[in-house]
Amino acid sequence: MTNTATNMRLKLPLTCFILEVIMIILFGVLVQYDAETDPKKWHLEKNHSGHHDYENDFYFRYPSFQDVHVMIFVGFGFLMTFLQRYGFGSVAFNLLISAFALQWATIMQGFFHFMRGGKISIGIESMINADFCTGSVLISFGAVLGKTSPVQLLFMALFEVTLFAINEFILLTVLGAKDAGGSMTIHTFGAYFGLMVARALYRPNLDKSKERNSSVYHSDMFAMIGTLYLWMFWPSFNSAITAHGDDQQRTAMNTYYSLAACTLSTFAMSSLTAHDGKLDMVHIQNAALAGGVAAGTAGEMMLTPAGSMIVGFLAGIISVLGFKYLSPILEEKLKIQDTCGVHNLHGMPGVLGAIVGAVTAAVATKEVYGEGLADVFPDVASGKFTASAQGVRQAISLAVTLGMALVGGLVVGFILKVPICGAPADTTCFEDNIYWEVPGEEPSQENQLTGVKMEESEKLNS
Amino acid sequence: MTNTATNMRLKLPLTCFILEVIMIILFGVLVQYDAETDPKKWHLEKNHSGHHDYENDFYFRYPSFQDVHVMIFVGFGFLMTFLQRYGFGSVAFNLLISAFALQWATIMQGFFHFMRGGKISIGIESMINADFCTGSVLISFGAVLGKTSPVQLLFMALFEVTLFAINEFILLTVLGAKDAGGSMTIHTFGAYFGLMVARALYRPNLDKSKERNSSVYHSDMFAMIGTLYLWMFWPSFNSAITAHGDDQQRTAMNTYYSLAACTLSTFAMSSLTAHDGKLDMVHIQNAALAGGVAAGTAGEMMLTPAGSMIVGFLAGIISVLGFKYLSPILEEKLKIQDTCGVHNLHGMPGVLGAIVGAVTAAVATKEVYGEGLADVFPDVASGKFTASAQGVRQAISLAVTLGMALVGGLVVGFILKVPICGAPADTTCFEDNIYWEVPGEEPSQENQLTGVKMEESEKLNS
Amino acid sequence: MTNTATNMRLKLPLTCFILEVIMIILFGVLVQYDAETDPKKWHLEKNHSGHHDYENDFYFRYPSFQDVHVMIFVGFGFLMTFLQRYGFGSVAFNLLISAFALQWATIMQGFFHFMRGGKISIGIESMINADFCTGSVLISFGAVLGKTSPVQLLFMALFEVTLFAINEFILLTVLGAKDAGGSMTIHTFGAYFGLMVARALYRPNLDKSKERNSSVYHSDMFAMIGTLYLWMFWPSFNSAITAHGDDQQRTAMNTYYSLAACTLSTFAMSSLTAHDGKLDMVHIQNAALAGGVAAGTAGEMMLTPAGSMIVGFLAGIISVLGFKYLSPILEEKLKIQDTCGVHNLHGMPGVLGAIVGAVTAAVATKEVYGEGLADVFPDVASGKFTASAQGVRQAISLAVTLGMALVGGLVVGFILKVPICGAPADTTCFEDNIYWEVPGEEPSQENQLTGVKMEESEKLNS
Repeated sequence: MTNTATNMRLKLPLTCFILEVIMIILFGVLVQYDAETDPKKWHLEKNHSGHHDYENDFYFRYPSFQDVHVMIFVGFGFLMTFLQRYGFGSVAFNLLISAFALQWATIMQGFFHFMRGGKISIGIESMINADFCTGSVLISFGAVLGKTSPVQLLFMALFEVTLFAINEFILLTVLGAKDAGGSMTIHTFGAYFGLMVARALYRPNLDKSKERNSSVYHSDMFAMIGTLYLWMFWPSFNSAITAHGDDQQRTAMNTYYSLAACTLSTFAMSSLTAHDGKLDMVHIQNAALAGGVAAGTAGEMMLTPAGSMIVGFLAGIISVLGFKYLSPILEEKLKIQDTCGVHNLHGMPGVLGAIVGAVTAAVATKEVYGEGLADVFPDVASGKFTASAQGVRQAISLAVTLGMALVGGLVVGFILKVPICGAPADTTCFEDNIYWEVPGEEPSQENQLTGVKMEESEKLNS
Repeated sequence: MTNTATNMRLKLPLTCFILEVIMIILFGVLVQYDAETDPKKWHLEKNHSGHHDYENDFYFRYPSFQDVHVMIFVGFGFLMTFLQRYGFGSVAFNLLISAFALQWATIMQGFFHFMRGGKISIGIESMINADFCTGSVLISFGAVLGKTSPVQLLFMALFEVTLFAINEFILLTVLGAKDAGGSMTIHTFGAYFGLMVARALYRPNLDKSKERNSSVYHSDMFAMIGTLYLWMFWPSFNSAITAHGDDQQRTAMNTYYSLAACTLSTFAMSSLTAHDGKLDMVHIQNAALAGGVAAGTAGEMMLTPAGSMIVGFLAGIISVLGFKYLSPILEEKLKIQDTCGVHNLHGMPGVLGAIVGAVTAAVATKEVYGEGLADVFPDVASGKFTASAQGVRQAISLAVTLGMALVGGLVVGFILKVPICGAPADTTCFEDNIYWEVPGEEPSQENQLTGVKMEESEKLNS
Repeated sequence: MTNTATNMRLKLPLTCFILEVIMIILFGVLVQYDAETDPKKWHLEKNHSGHHDYENDFYFRYPSFQDVHVMIFVGFGFLMTFLQRYGFGSVAFNLLISAFALQWATIMQGFFHFMRGGKISIGIESMINADFCTGSVLISFGAVLGKTSPVQLLFMALFEVTLFAINEFILLTVLGAKDAGGSMTIHTFGAYFGLMVARALYRPNLDKSKERNSSVYHSDMFAMIGTLYLWMFWPSFNSAITAHGDDQQRTAMNTYYSLAACTLSTFAMSSLTAHDGKLDMVHIQNAALAGGVAAGTAGEMMLTPAGSMIVGFLAGIISVLGFKYLSPILEEKLKIQDTCGVHNLHGMPGVLGAIVGAVTAAVATKEVYGEGLADVFPDVASGKFTASAQGVRQAISLAVTLGMALVGGLVVGFILKVPICGAPADTTCFEDNIYWEVPGEEPSQENQLTGVKMEESEKLNS
């Protein structure tokens, strides 16, 4: 009764085992605790440099890390459960590819950023960065949700993490751009990469599964769990790796107000674009988050609360319009079937965030930032760049990211077309039954004890 | 097919856009980063006053803030999803009015508390306070849940936040009362305000919607998500803005034990008041939280763990009795239709908390609090008031709060009766369909691939 | 219509009231705030010893405490909601017994660990320890889920907490073992204790309820909420009470990578052991967590990230194999009906964790740990034990734990057989209807307004 093409019995275990064994070997050879995680080194710091335990980076960043972690696993995982018959795949493949991606990201980002003397030193900051990179993969997952096998997803993660780390290295190290909340590195990259993968995997006959490519009442409720955790913890996401002190606080605050304003414009646009004024859960679940995406680059800068609100306000409008008018065009004209609408939540708001970041950087002055300028724009503070040059570099970074994502996504998409990967047929997309043992939808009536039945059965039993 | 009265197509977008534009203008003119959020000021503090980054208030309060944030959006939002056909409205209108209320609260509370030189300085503490004020609006939302349009709710938030800020100013600044966890300012105020709004909006024919004014199995499960997050994070709620050090720890601990004791008395009373001893989910979802409400004022004081448990124990009993016996009377005699029973969860336990706070304050001594007296009761420590006078002021604060809430709620309720607000008809209360595009309840049988059908369809496809 | 045997109307209220009154009296007589929670003492510390508020243990541990708290109430609570008709019992009895157990654990652990001058001093660390002990009771609850009354569960908690505290005292104080994340004290103890209780409560005719002893689609989704919160916050669980600084960071990191590796091996094994390669939600919900259990003892040691990944990898394999092949044997041959499969998630991985801990301890050297050795192995650093002796003591601790759990569980299980406890009949296991007022499963069709009906009803109403 099972189709051999989608039978994962050998493919998935083999892929998982091989990937995990490679990870363990790479970690064994390359990875070590950093100076704040290693007992010998940290105690030397304490004894010889007069540091105290409360200065350990763990206490500055662990609460933010845990919030980011919740966004990755519950936020993204449940946001994608809106499909009526793909809840298992959404939340559990999300777990699978994240668990792999965070390990591989530790290696790849470590290779570029944290390599010292042939060793990758890891700590709480690298854990946050690994989760960030994972977030990018999950955005791409959103574009191909329900149309891919777990093996395809693991391979997508393998390639995407690699390209993510290269792009991030070019932006942050080569170009000296700032992107603490990842409008460019995470959202723009993940969205356009995923859209190109979806383009490569275009299915002309996907309407054979169209009756399952929608929500039911309860699946929309589950999806709201994801939405709310993303919404609530986005201030932690954007501030997780900014400099200690005012920077973390300012970034969290800017994101908080950006999201609040975005929520109002999302509700307004959702109602305005419906012929009967009825709100659409798709917009609330997604567009209300665009304010977090759009504050990703400039959140740590002197965007001001009012500036953040303007950004969020625009992001909500753009995002709803995208869902309503642009997504159908993308599918018809560009043959991009974007299951979750990641172009509207992460793509366009990510580009908006990158532009806002470039502009805000270009107008930065020592007068406004004071000594804090060195935390936000070290190259401007040191006189290496002017503020305008920083703005230009931010803009170049956006272009590089778009190029890397578009080309990379297309190439990876074609790689994933290899038939051996076990993709579902056009008639069985958006269906958990293919890869999962699925129990019934509801308890059968006979399983539910009614008062009368219960009495009888207890009589028999006692 | 849509009733024009409840069509939100112009009303809701217009309301959202106008309110948000006003917010942006007010923020632009009035609001600035405080000294720990502004890069220039914070770095001056660090360089000139020898402060370190770990002394930034962000690290003392951000974890508590995020817990409070979860309570507001997931806690309140999901607690109200118990209605069988109002899940979208519960969780998403909760998001909408919170997103507005937190912005408006920043302005109003800032106006009274954080105004310096014509500017409102904001930081992590003002963000917590804004969330607190939002919580009060959500309590009122609970009383009118399912019977109001989103436009009515936004206007309710507009007025309630204003009155909240005035009442809070009278209590904390004019009267010098202490109410860190808001038994009075948040719970008592929000509950009685909401009850009066519900009184003004009384619907004699609400029984036309009574078949939807109840839960189903799954909606009760969703509601438990809300309950648990409120229960778990209440220690953070009550301790979020207490003084650093022992105060935050003591408040969290008192609330922890108060809730534990409350849970046992809630289960006991729920079973005891049922003729067949069966537990009622409404009690567990709500009354088990009353211990957090009742520890709101005295949580930071020397209530002792045992004292906290006694308070929680009583709160659980009162709350279950209220649900069982008082709510029907409120509806029949006083014409107050309290959808969520906020009188039982927030009203009576809030009053209990205020009384406990007054008594605990009145017996405070330097001997017990030591130097810590200045943190909890600065006016007593400085000799401005005696402890008894502090107790009296606490009691007066309760009276003021009740007065403000009752009168304010009634007036606002009558304002909300303006027909243009688009309230649902008596026959369409507790129904998402009015304001939402609602998908089907369950996937149709034909959408679910069975093994056999799948095999066939894959054959055709391959 | 209700069976008198399972009627809780007197039994449950009486049990709750008596237990809670005893708790309040014990707290009143024995418990006091510790030196960081008491205002007088903390301010003396600040003034006389030069401490600062940021050195208060609250700021080192409260975020971890809240994560642990979420694991206990949402993690365990929702993980058990996988049963189709036992969602209320799972999540709400979980709340009830936890609320009691954390109070009783405060007393019992305080008696052994925190007693000073006839008083038990409590603070944030004792709150974490109380939650830990509660976790052990919840593991046992998983073994007997659906087959016990709330009164039985409260009595089980009463006895189990007592034995837990004794076992913990023997391990940590008498034997000087290390077990920060509780592979032995929490997981091994809780699992084998629960299995023995299940053995004592063996029901030969349980197959009369077998149609309800399984999941439906939505109940599996609810269970994944529990799984994800356990998965995400396990790093906080294992690091919550380790020493400040590098120790907390290292433990969190080791657990993070152990879980990631465990997830890949879980997916691999779940697919490999299914004849059609289809993944089983039971494995994902449970086995993917085994990496956290297995890193409980050695997480704070120099396990290295690669070492942690190997441990997690093995734990996932063992756990899936246990669910697939061992659980049926346990039921048939040993008459242990383990509802949630706690033997596979907590039992075997706990034993694995204990062994890994013993081996890692035995090879500890001053060269690797530097001055940090005193934090992890104070007795080795002080020269009281050699590292090998520490390893031996760890191994003895595992044996003691197994002995205490097996004997204790069996005795307590027989005590719980007293008929007065109100256990459900064999035909009514796994059924909320026995102890709960249960609403219908889905809104009846007539409750759902269709467009046409709505129009009509609104016409009538307007």
